Amino acid sequence: MKNYIKHDPWRIIEEGFDNELNKNSESVCSIGNGKGGQRANFEETFTGNTLQGSYVSGVYYPDKTRVGWWKNGYPEYFAKMLNAPSWTGIHINIDGEELDLAKCKVTDFSRVLDMKRGVLERHFVAEMQSGKKVEVSSTRFLSIVRDEIGAIKYTIKPLNFSAKATVTPDVDADIVNQDSNYDEKFWVEISKHVDDSVSVIAETKKTKFQVCTAAVTRFSVDTTGDEPILREKYAAKRYSLNLKQNEIVIINKYACITSTMYYTADEIEAKTNAVLYEAVSAGFDTLLAEQEKAWDEKWKESDIIIEGDVAAQQGIRFNIFQLNQTYTGRDERLNIGPKGFTGEKYGGTTYWDTEAYCLPFYLATADKKVAHSLLVYRWKHLKKAIENAQKLGFTNGAALYPMVTINGEECHNEWEITFEEIHRNAAIANAIGIYINYTGEKEYLAQYGLEVLIGISRFWAQRVNWSEDKQKYVMLGVTGPNEYENNVNNNWYTSLSAVQNMKYTIKAIEYVKTNHPADFDRIKSTCNFDEKETEKWQHIIDNMYLGYDEKRKVFIQNDGFMDKELIPVTRMDQSQRPINQHWSWDRILRSCYIKQADVLQGIYFFEDQFDNDTIKRNFEFYEQFTVHESSLSSCIHNILAAKVGLHDKAYQFYLNASRLDLDDYNNDTCDGCHITSMGGTWMTIVQGFGGMRIKDGLLSFNATLPEKWQSYSFKIRHRDNVLQITVSKAGTKIERLEGPQTKVYIDGALTEI
Amino acid sequence: MKNYIKHDPWRIIEEGFDNELNKNSESVCSIGNGKGGQRANFEETFTGNTLQGSYVSGVYYPDKTRVGWWKNGYPEYFAKMLNAPSWTGIHINIDGEELDLAKCKVTDFSRVLDMKRGVLERHFVAEMQSGKKVEVSSTRFLSIVRDEIGAIKYTIKPLNFSAKATVTPDVDADIVNQDSNYDEKFWVEISKHVDDSVSVIAETKKTKFQVCTAAVTRFSVDTTGDEPILREKYAAKRYSLNLKQNEIVIINKYACITSTMYYTADEIEAKTNAVLYEAVSAGFDTLLAEQEKAWDEKWKESDIIIEGDVAAQQGIRFNIFQLNQTYTGRDERLNIGPKGFTGEKYGGTTYWDTEAYCLPFYLATADKKVAHSLLVYRWKHLKKAIENAQKLGFTNGAALYPMVTINGEECHNEWEITFEEIHRNAAIANAIGIYINYTGEKEYLAQYGLEVLIGISRFWAQRVNWSEDKQKYVMLGVTGPNEYENNVNNNWYTSLSAVQNMKYTIKAIEYVKTNHPADFDRIKSTCNFDEKETEKWQHIIDNMYLGYDEKRKVFIQNDGFMDKELIPVTRMDQSQRPINQHWSWDRILRSCYIKQADVLQGIYFFEDQFDNDTIKRNFEFYEQFTVHESSLSSCIHNILAAKVGLHDKAYQFYLNASRLDLDDYNNDTCDGCHITSMGGTWMTIVQGFGGMRIKDGLLSFNATLPEKWQSYSFKIRHRDNVLQITVSKAGTKIERLEGPQTKVYIDGALTEI
Repeated sequence: MKNYIKHDPWRIIEEGFDNELNKNSESVCSIGNGKGGQRANFEETFTGNTLQGSYVSGVYYPDKTRVGWWKNGYPEYFAKMLNAPSWTGIHINIDGEELDLAKCKVTDFSRVLDMKRGVLERHFVAEMQSGKKVEVSSTRFLSIVRDEIGAIKYTIKPLNFSAKATVTPDVDADIVNQDSNYDEKFWVEISKHVDDSVSVIAETKKTKFQVCTAAVTRFSVDTTGDEPILREKYAAKRYSLNLKQNEIVIINKYACITSTMYYTADEIEAKTNAVLYEAVSAGFDTLLAEQEKAWDEKWKESDIIIEGDVAAQQGIRFNIFQLNQTYTGRDERLNIGPKGFTGEKYGGTTYWDTEAYCLPFYLATADKKVAHSLLVYRWKHLKKAIENAQKLGFTNGAALYPMVTINGEECHNEWEITFEEIHRNAAIANAIGIYINYTGEKEYLAQYGLEVLIGISRFWAQRVNWSEDKQKYVMLGVTGPNEYENNVNNNWYTSLSAVQNMKYTIKAIEYVKTNHPADFDRIKSTCNFDEKETEKWQHIIDNMYLGYDEKRKVFIQNDGFMDKELIPVTRMDQSQRPINQHWSWDRILRSCYIKQADVLQGIYFFEDQFDNDTIKRNFEFYEQFTVHESSLSSCIHNILAAKVGLHDKAYQFYLNASRLDLDDYNNDTCDGCHITSMGGTWMTIVQGFGGMRIKDGLLSFNATLPEKWQSYSFKIRHRDNVLQITVSKAGTKIERLEGPQTKVYIDGALTEI
Repeated sequence: MKNYIKHDPWRIIEEGFDNELNKNSESVCSIGNGKGGQRANFEETFTGNTLQGSYVSGVYYPDKTRVGWWKNGYPEYFAKMLNAPSWTGIHINIDGEELDLAKCKVTDFSRVLDMKRGVLERHFVAEMQSGKKVEVSSTRFLSIVRDEIGAIKYTIKPLNFSAKATVTPDVDADIVNQDSNYDEKFWVEISKHVDDSVSVIAETKKTKFQVCTAAVTRFSVDTTGDEPILREKYAAKRYSLNLKQNEIVIINKYACITSTMYYTADEIEAKTNAVLYEAVSAGFDTLLAEQEKAWDEKWKESDIIIEGDVAAQQGIRFNIFQLNQTYTGRDERLNIGPKGFTGEKYGGTTYWDTEAYCLPFYLATADKKVAHSLLVYRWKHLKKAIENAQKLGFTNGAALYPMVTINGEECHNEWEITFEEIHRNAAIANAIGIYINYTGEKEYLAQYGLEVLIGISRFWAQRVNWSEDKQKYVMLGVTGPNEYENNVNNNWYTSLSAVQNMKYTIKAIEYVKTNHPADFDRIKSTCNFDEKETEKWQHIIDNMYLGYDEKRKVFIQNDGFMDKELIPVTRMDQSQRPINQHWSWDRILRSCYIKQADVLQGIYFFEDQFDNDTIKRNFEFYEQFTVHESSLSSCIHNILAAKVGLHDKAYQFYLNASRLDLDDYNNDTCDGCHITSMGGTWMTIVQGFGGMRIKDGLLSFNATLPEKWQSYSFKIRHRDNVLQITVSKAGTKIERLEGPQTKVYIDGALTEI
């Protein structure tokens, strides 16, 4: 845990330069615009502790799968979003000496991510080894309005000297991924040039995505000359100028980053230039004003205000900011990687996190098109999910969505996850129900949803088998959300989810058949679907084995769980935590310790089906064994604790979730931020404290106020309305900000708003 | 399956040159002498299909462990026996044209492994591209008398020409392992020289073993000159000579291969030279005579004769021959790799195969010192087994022997095996009981055995936990011998073995305490052993959960097994076999199909405790689901089938086992032979058909004769006797070949021999 980020309601503030903390700050101060992102690396040369990271969404490389012993069915490759050509470099050389904070005495250093405006600012005074002192400020952003444009305003003020200097803005495609196995480089140069602008077109090996990165730089003073610098995969222009003591030089660098995701290889250079020079013409101040206005709009729909707790306020805004800059829903081919654009870990790939933890945020804070795009992403991958299931021996259009993917193909390579953590299918099916329940847009089923549901129900129907001994269907060899057990039988969460998915599919079939008969015929034909298939599904629904412990009156997480030594986490040696850093894998597996919500995840998803006593009993039984060693655990526990009135616990879980990255709880923020779990953090306030649910298509709130807070309020877009919900000691107040009059349940009472 | 090896009682015969089959033949015609081995690669240059392989026992390299996702507790490296410098090369160049069978028209080709004499012979006529025809014969062996010496007699006869030629015998340390990840080379040159002899001293990277390989060549005709050839890691001498039509030139190459396993780096070169020139002085014929005599002695103790079935005869002798040339028991630091010296797969490392499948052969066919060496190998690794258990969280001297090892450290890197296939510990403990039961040498417990038993019993006592629900001890998260289930609870075999090990340890403690009190005090002190520890062991022995199915009256392989779809192998689609080549891993895991004996392995080991009905019921229940996709499966099934009177089945299992490599059942003999399963094949005849057991310290036979055979006989060394057991239609006849009068049970009746 770290505690150096200054508390502030709108800004993430680092003060004072600390080389050791730099990678951490680079992560938390990352900027992005849905189409790409950039860690808060320095513009000038820096030879200290850094993880360079520029990312272009959708551009990936199929890296070699590494395994110890090959198993049939493993994927051929691991797709990873590459560290992309860098557009931020502005190298400063004064009188032959390179400005490099690793070699300077640095004072007045600050790095500030201004979340309100979507801007990263940096300021410092550096005393170079020659004794020259310069004051530098930089302001940069990735435009969310012109989403191919990045802009930097970099100012230099010589404090105690005048001297000749060179300034070298560059575009650098000679980039490696830190996680490449043998320092291979994944980019090859297609072309480069230097004239007024500098640019490089680089292509990924194998996948042959091209990325064109071009930049133009303007100075507030006359430069005395310039020269092109061209190396392999690198283009820059070195400007000479005279620095005068106490005179500020302003350098504006405009960059345009495009890819063959959006342009053909033939046109990419011309298009990039056109977009770039439009931005140059607009100028830095105009671009910045656009950015501020657009972020203001985003906050209008998605802000959460907490009164009386600045740390909590900063924490929740940080989560919302990251979610908004990671995904915009504009491109159905994109999704949300666990680290977003803040690091290269997990390769920018998509997990079940998106559906289970991120969807509710986008549904409630943006136009429904955004959530729609997330769903269509999976619909587009249905064919590959069917192929994936076929590889594992399933037939007749059964679909198994990958655990990890970029383009729909499975990329994960641990058998107990790849082949067995199949509950991901449930999250994808549930998401359809959640979307329709929230938006009321049932016709989504006819257009897209039903095909996915049929594929998933077919999978479940083939994945279970009849146990003669139990006279029930069992589901053998699965891994639940609690990855601290592997290859178990009858994981309650997975089996319950399968039943719910099949039930929902049967209902969806009826709906589409009745209301969209033409679509139904089309789907029957494309899916080769026979309505009789539902008979088997119904038989499974009616006869699924779902473990229940009569003695303890709780659901059984999976077969054998109750045979374990059941010692609560509070009674274990705390020096052994986190167990994933102290214990061997087998010891973890046979312990009773639970990584993240498992039975409770099922209760969360299907809460309506359980009474409060059941929820509380299961919460209290399983929570005592849960070590929360996944960033996705606290939110579910917060929501259920709040639901059953365990308010102190709920608040504790909120704290764990909301400042996870800012305070670096897991000592891994240097690798990037936990983007997908940020959706969960949003849920802790809205669904946890706010108690928001959808009831008969209407919003419902059962709010509680954490003791430490004076009040909190959040904005929700629901169908045609934007509402502001404020919870204070006076109770829950709901204001309608947009849209027609509507009804809302407040603490169970239907209320006109 | 292949069928090109000619049937012959004593010889493995390949006739006709087939490039495609060459790697296969190289494996089956491998020669070895316990200290090293050599695939049947050609002496002359060969650019065709070949896997070069020379192996020096005990010389290994710690290669980087490859895994997909690292788990705590994984080993740092994978130790592998390296492909060692080659000593066999004799390159022939005639009139500027290299003799290379890949480029010749080859006739009269034969490759013959003469098992009786321990000699590899090869003969061919090659028509070179120039039209020149040469007739070549070679005879080579690795001496089992002088176990650092290899010798080759190579003869050339020009059939249709006279010409100048060069002959270049070499020593080549510029060697790669075929399985190296990135073609890394693991050898570095220390020194090399050419004078009368040629030699290279090469050192392994990291482990710094040195291997000195030296060779001297003598010709039957005068050579016209010679020149040294020295390259990086390579030394040779190129002799010029005149070939005359129809005149035979005999080339004798003598090689000496030594390592710093046996000599210091300072002395290795001188010692190697001394041993080499002693062999040169003795001459090829003397060395060969020694070899023939020594093999004759080996066969006197270990031969099995089958009358009426040449294929079976050849098969069993091949197994015995390989076992004898792989391991001699002379060095307690060595053991038996699954491929012996016939290929590089599995890295020459030691598995539980040694104790479970090889020990009985060495016990019954050689001086007890040989089996003793195998046991002491594990005793020497006890400290590392304790460290290994500590890494996984075990305490107080609990020992977990590695799944795969060369030097006592774990080298395997799949969590479900490395951490969970812990029944290997049982094989090591059982081996102590088997050794003592066979030899009567109880004092082995005091000297070595008890310490190992205490370490293993401590492990079991910590590995189980008390289940409140079952009111029994359970063993969670294990993988049994059936590796087609992973991470299961209460594997019957493992739990039963744990109980047996603890029982035996308690008895061993009593014995040593009573009969060797000084040793007992020493052991108590070195193991920090408190006699009270046995109370917990006894409680576990009395309360271990061992699954039993009341309905089917069979033991339950592991929790959940009976929930599977139980479809016999005979009723599955046969095109799906072997399932490990057709099915994804998860499908295999949740199927009922069993890779190799699991419950039946337990019944085999502890047969005395089960009545015939129980054995038969369990055999019939589990065998129907067993796919035998391990070479270690058939032997156990043969023995139990024979025991319960299922003679046809027993014979079928014998066939599967005995010619596995000769007929290449698994299509993998090209990688090397299945050496450790050969011990199992020997067991099929002696324990299976012969029904040999030890009963109250005496040999007991309950023999049956396979219908197809006229008779079979085998030799057994038991304590001071060597007996010959002959089973024919007339019954079982036992002859005493060596030692004093003794008693033997024949078909239950105690008989004086």
